[in-house]
Amino acid sequence: MNIKIIFNVIGFLLILTGLLMLPGIPFSIYYKDDDIISLLISSLITIITGVALWFFTKDADKSNLGKREGYLIVTLGWIFMSAFGSIPFLIHGSIPSFTDAFFETMSGFTTTGATIIGDIEKLPSGLLFWRSMTQWIGGMGIIVLSLAIMPLLGIGGMQLFSAEVPGITKDKFHPRVKETAKRLWGIYVIFTAAEVLFLVIGGLSLFDAINHSFTTMATGGFSTKNASTAYYDSIFVQYVFIFFMFLAGTNFSLHYFALHGNFEVFKKNTEFKLYVSFLIGATLIVMFIHRPHHNFSFEESFRQTLFHVTSLVTTTGFVSSDYENWAPFSRIVFFVLLFIGGCTGSTGGGIKFARHSLMLKNSWLEFKRLIHPRAIIPVRFNEKAVSQEIISNVQAFFMIYILIFIIGALILSLSGLDFFTAIGASATCLGNVGPGLGVVGPVGNFSTLPDFDKWVLSVFMLIGRLEIFTVLVMLSPSFWKK
Amino acid sequence: MNIKIIFNVIGFLLILTGLLMLPGIPFSIYYKDDDIISLLISSLITIITGVALWFFTKDADKSNLGKREGYLIVTLGWIFMSAFGSIPFLIHGSIPSFTDAFFETMSGFTTTGATIIGDIEKLPSGLLFWRSMTQWIGGMGIIVLSLAIMPLLGIGGMQLFSAEVPGITKDKFHPRVKETAKRLWGIYVIFTAAEVLFLVIGGLSLFDAINHSFTTMATGGFSTKNASTAYYDSIFVQYVFIFFMFLAGTNFSLHYFALHGNFEVFKKNTEFKLYVSFLIGATLIVMFIHRPHHNFSFEESFRQTLFHVTSLVTTTGFVSSDYENWAPFSRIVFFVLLFIGGCTGSTGGGIKFARHSLMLKNSWLEFKRLIHPRAIIPVRFNEKAVSQEIISNVQAFFMIYILIFIIGALILSLSGLDFFTAIGASATCLGNVGPGLGVVGPVGNFSTLPDFDKWVLSVFMLIGRLEIFTVLVMLSPSFWKK
Repeated sequence: MNIKIIFNVIGFLLILTGLLMLPGIPFSIYYKDDDIISLLISSLITIITGVALWFFTKDADKSNLGKREGYLIVTLGWIFMSAFGSIPFLIHGSIPSFTDAFFETMSGFTTTGATIIGDIEKLPSGLLFWRSMTQWIGGMGIIVLSLAIMPLLGIGGMQLFSAEVPGITKDKFHPRVKETAKRLWGIYVIFTAAEVLFLVIGGLSLFDAINHSFTTMATGGFSTKNASTAYYDSIFVQYVFIFFMFLAGTNFSLHYFALHGNFEVFKKNTEFKLYVSFLIGATLIVMFIHRPHHNFSFEESFRQTLFHVTSLVTTTGFVSSDYENWAPFSRIVFFVLLFIGGCTGSTGGGIKFARHSLMLKNSWLEFKRLIHPRAIIPVRFNEKAVSQEIISNVQAFFMIYILIFIIGALILSLSGLDFFTAIGASATCLGNVGPGLGVVGPVGNFSTLPDFDKWVLSVFMLIGRLEIFTVLVMLSPSFWKK
Repeated sequence: MNIKIIFNVIGFLLILTGLLMLPGIPFSIYYKDDDIISLLISSLITIITGVALWFFTKDADKSNLGKREGYLIVTLGWIFMSAFGSIPFLIHGSIPSFTDAFFETMSGFTTTGATIIGDIEKLPSGLLFWRSMTQWIGGMGIIVLSLAIMPLLGIGGMQLFSAEVPGITKDKFHPRVKETAKRLWGIYVIFTAAEVLFLVIGGLSLFDAINHSFTTMATGGFSTKNASTAYYDSIFVQYVFIFFMFLAGTNFSLHYFALHGNFEVFKKNTEFKLYVSFLIGATLIVMFIHRPHHNFSFEESFRQTLFHVTSLVTTTGFVSSDYENWAPFSRIVFFVLLFIGGCTGSTGGGIKFARHSLMLKNSWLEFKRLIHPRAIIPVRFNEKAVSQEIISNVQAFFMIYILIFIIGALILSLSGLDFFTAIGASATCLGNVGPGLGVVGPVGNFSTLPDFDKWVLSVFMLIGRLEIFTVLVMLSPSFWKK
């Protein structure tokens, strides 16, 4: 194991983290908030640690970066960034407990959006900005990881697209990865800027617009308001959120092609078609069932339903009303939605449509295989046959995902959480969604959970965000063998 | 499609069904009950219909019995038997609604044990006996019974055997299906007789002993008492139930070898080892967690927990106390147990240990495969490598199972059932367990559910009992193509 290169990269990530704590300071100055010193000190601590790590490992053998090092860099990187990212909250004192601050920052970097803060509006603007920034960085990070790096490690749903995405070759870190990463960041920045513009037009302050755009494009779901996006009752603003959540949940390589005038890719992409059909289908079904239970107008019923379906499916977790008191049917639907996830190569978490699609197709073909036992009937995805290895990997992913969810629910219930809260918290953190059921439902938060549970859920957020294998592969003895 | 042979066999099944309504009559005479005429008339109607069907199709081409016919015979056979099996309840008037009577009989034949009867003790003994009999027949499988005694079906026997006992380990221990079927029934009868003996020693009346032995060995769970087996507070009787539930949840081919002195098979059988470890593990975990919440003695805590774990895992569904007011942790465990199921080749329903074992092993190997992408690492089961086709089939089974469970919960919640009741009813009927959560929990019953839900759940019981593919393959267009 090349330990030096691992800490060299982590050092660099910390320098970056430290620098990104600073852009919120102008807002603190403008709003006359008391968090400027805290941010400066935190930034300094983080940058100095980063520089030190980087300096002491600068003789690392950079040509010797294998798969194992890749897994370790990604996992440890996220943990280090969350640990250092929680310093501003601690120094300022607005989140005095390290457990809470770590949970909040991990929830940020993993774009989960689960929060332990009861009164968000009390936070100074610099800290709020940093909190949204963690999501924006996390969102960006995951796109680059899933499109450019995970396929090289042999994991992630993007293996399916390897032929389509520029810059991905199976064997080693290709020089074009850098090019890919740059392009994806470009799209990310453009979309974020566009959302800021629309939100400002919709009446949000520049500060709120930037914060919400950060957390929308990351499918994160942190808000600067206690009522989350339900604070904004403008119909226009709500549709803007829906539209950009939808974009954020889409594979960014499709956006890349679209921005270059090739819209055909959307039509040919199996996952995207399933994504759109599912959003429409789930919205219509819930709306149809849910509507008689409320006195909403047709448009309001449609908008509220589409909002929540999009928010949960893309794993954003914005809330526009308390869906927990909707009909039992809608509650079960919303719980199931915690297990869907966006498209691969998007900023969304969860199981993701490519996997669902492959599993459904494979299950359906099993009937055909039963009747024609001698025929070889492969699953087709994006008009190509998918190998049995990938199917097997996807199904293993699903099994482990469900297993972790169950173990999580059991561990949480051990500390006395009720059935609903336990299954909701486990599902929503693993899926990087944000709100769950019961105590941690759309109008609740995670503050009252025991510290132990917060640590468990922090690990769950990381496992979910890094698509399980990246983290859990380290539990395999083969990982540590020479 | 050879329609004639299908109805020829169904005719024979109905004759058998009609005959099996009669053995309860001596008890009705002894207890001076009022259901003798109802049973005689029902038996007559069923037998006459059976003879008519059989007579009008006796020129069927018996050499032409393929897979498709096999699936249809089994699925339709169970539906016809449940329809005719509900006649005694209807004629006697103790279950006046056809929906309820059909649900109860389907719950019997599928060995689910879900009941719509509030006051079971009011039923006359002949009907109670018939109710337990439906489970006993369903446990070993009526087709298997037919194969053992019906000479005609020799040629297509395997098609029927594999459609009714779909499993994944096709360990016929005799080349001739008829011989296998006979031996299986032999063991089944011996075990049932042994349990009757033990229960009579434990103080049960002969009538109660036979009824409960029928429903234990079938992993059915119907009781003649309103309080289910909690009625018997004898420690000895409770351990007898635990022991025979355990036997019933074991692969019967292992019992066959054991009865011939070969006990090695238990040690070599991957599934059996997992079954035993899981029962012990789950019991210890629940006991450890659950105990501080109650003032049970160590022995009582152990017995109650082992009882419920065994009852739910083997899909029997006997109840020895209301576990719904145990700690949240135990409730989640018990809910998860609805998805376990006994061993393949047992009378238990559910997903079954062989499948869980294969999926867990395959998922675990996925980590190894990630690190050694070029190595071919097969799953090993019973010391043999398992083909990718079987793994794929098992994973498809799991996916479809979960999907049907979710669809079921959604359909049930549509009719206004609460979250708990909806997920509990869907899981317990699909898994052929019996009790669920909430309204349909261990001390509740299914009587208050809307008729529509009862039909849905009847279908679910059948789908679960015939291991999904046997029933659902008919939805595939390929099934109906020439």
